[in-house]
Amino acid sequence: MSYFTEDTSASVVNGRIGPEASPRLRRVMTSLVEHLHAFVRDVELTEEEWETAINFLTETGQICSGSRQEFILLSDTLGVSMLVDAINHRNPNGATETTVFGPFHVENAPEREMGTNISLDGKGEICLYSGHVLDLDGNPIENAIVDVWSDNQDGFYDVQQPDIQPPFNNRGRFRTGPDGAYAFRGIKPVSYPIPDDGPVGKMLTALGRHPWRPAHMHFLVSAPGCRRLITHLFVAGDTYLASDAVFGVKRSLIVDYRKVASVSEAWRADYDFFLCRETQ
Amino acid sequence: MSYFTEDTSASVVNGRIGPEASPRLRRVMTSLVEHLHAFVRDVELTEEEWETAINFLTETGQICSGSRQEFILLSDTLGVSMLVDAINHRNPNGATETTVFGPFHVENAPEREMGTNISLDGKGEICLYSGHVLDLDGNPIENAIVDVWSDNQDGFYDVQQPDIQPPFNNRGRFRTGPDGAYAFRGIKPVSYPIPDDGPVGKMLTALGRHPWRPAHMHFLVSAPGCRRLITHLFVAGDTYLASDAVFGVKRSLIVDYRKVASVSEAWRADYDFFLCRETQ
Repeated sequence: MSYFTEDTSASVVNGRIGPEASPRLRRVMTSLVEHLHAFVRDVELTEEEWETAINFLTETGQICSGSRQEFILLSDTLGVSMLVDAINHRNPNGATETTVFGPFHVENAPEREMGTNISLDGKGEICLYSGHVLDLDGNPIENAIVDVWSDNQDGFYDVQQPDIQPPFNNRGRFRTGPDGAYAFRGIKPVSYPIPDDGPVGKMLTALGRHPWRPAHMHFLVSAPGCRRLITHLFVAGDTYLASDAVFGVKRSLIVDYRKVASVSEAWRADYDFFLCRETQ
Repeated sequence: MSYFTEDTSASVVNGRIGPEASPRLRRVMTSLVEHLHAFVRDVELTEEEWETAINFLTETGQICSGSRQEFILLSDTLGVSMLVDAINHRNPNGATETTVFGPFHVENAPEREMGTNISLDGKGEICLYSGHVLDLDGNPIENAIVDVWSDNQDGFYDVQQPDIQPPFNNRGRFRTGPDGAYAFRGIKPVSYPIPDDGPVGKMLTALGRHPWRPAHMHFLVSAPGCRRLITHLFVAGDTYLASDAVFGVKRSLIVDYRKVASVSEAWRADYDFFLCRETQ
């Protein structure tokens, strides 16, 4: 038998895993312990720093509530969420790129007629969003659900301000016809800071990082027989495109919002979504 | 500028650290992000596993209270606490080995006369602990404080049972004279499980690990001009010596408890502590 030493630490810990552990749990925890110990060894973590880490993790857990998830924020701001997204969505070339889901999606937002304006609070500049849902061969996809959501002109999602914003403000679902086309009106979204009054905000400040996300419209596009697509469209020219606090920006997701002078909108944004068939 | 990709993830995240960050924070966080991303990439963490991890960390934070620190328990059971201890106490050969501090120390326990029995609840088998506090050349250290604490016969520390056990049960501090000798009576301690009704207990069960610690007496030995020594003495023959849930056992800390037939004790345990001078 071998006792714990600085050199054997990870193998001693992993050697304790019993036959009751599932093969996958064994694999994940073995790797976690190896990398965690390698980190501690690499920086020669002091006892004071260890205590700071314990307190940080404790505060991060204790600030979580039904309407706040600080550990997701931590995962987002350390790039872990985007890395998990990348690993789990290695789609073929030509498929629309994915990005983080974020915490503000609401299941079963109302299904609306194409062209409907989803901005219910009358704030912000209206934009006509339009395009097609297509497969990788460019064929239109019928009965795709285009589920969209954004912040309002003040930088808050409806669920963050249930007493101020109308329910389902800046949310809606649209179902494509045989031509795969979609169209709706929503606001030209605005950039906003992630909640920064907790431990993650303090961490960002200490790291000399800001908490802002560049303006974006969320899309969840799903269709029978296709892989679900979770992504954003970002507004070209936004100040924070190169420094999104959660690393969500990809070049292919940046869209030119064109200024127009229409009765029903001030801007237009066109984008086609390319979905993978489940078999691809 | 470079957007986030699966291959560049850690360098993109670390590239955001600003000049405001202290050099040490930059060093620690850069290494943390590199190792964390390497782990996620290594196991190709699924979105479901990521969600399980978020929930686990959240529960771990939420169960923490004034009298419970589940993140320390997590650090202990993953071997991180012992690794931090090892890195921070690379003492010269001949110095008494260190082990984890544990959460049950109390500052300023009463200073008692040499030989006093610290077991105040009348439970358990009494043991005479004796030996010397010495420097690495074998010279006795005067005015060393030998601060000791253990569980009681039921496997609980006094602070875990404030309504049941007398205050300072199985605790005391002893000051050495010119010969460096110490002696006190306490119980022959018993093995006990770490709190296992929370997320860490569930993790241990899933890993096929038990929550038990082998029986031990805690020692914090300090003296002017010397490095503080935090360690345990373990009872030879204990069932859990080879599988301490927190990896605290070292061969040199295992002590033979000798059965005796004295009026005032049933056992004897002898141990000399060797402290490093601060300049060593």
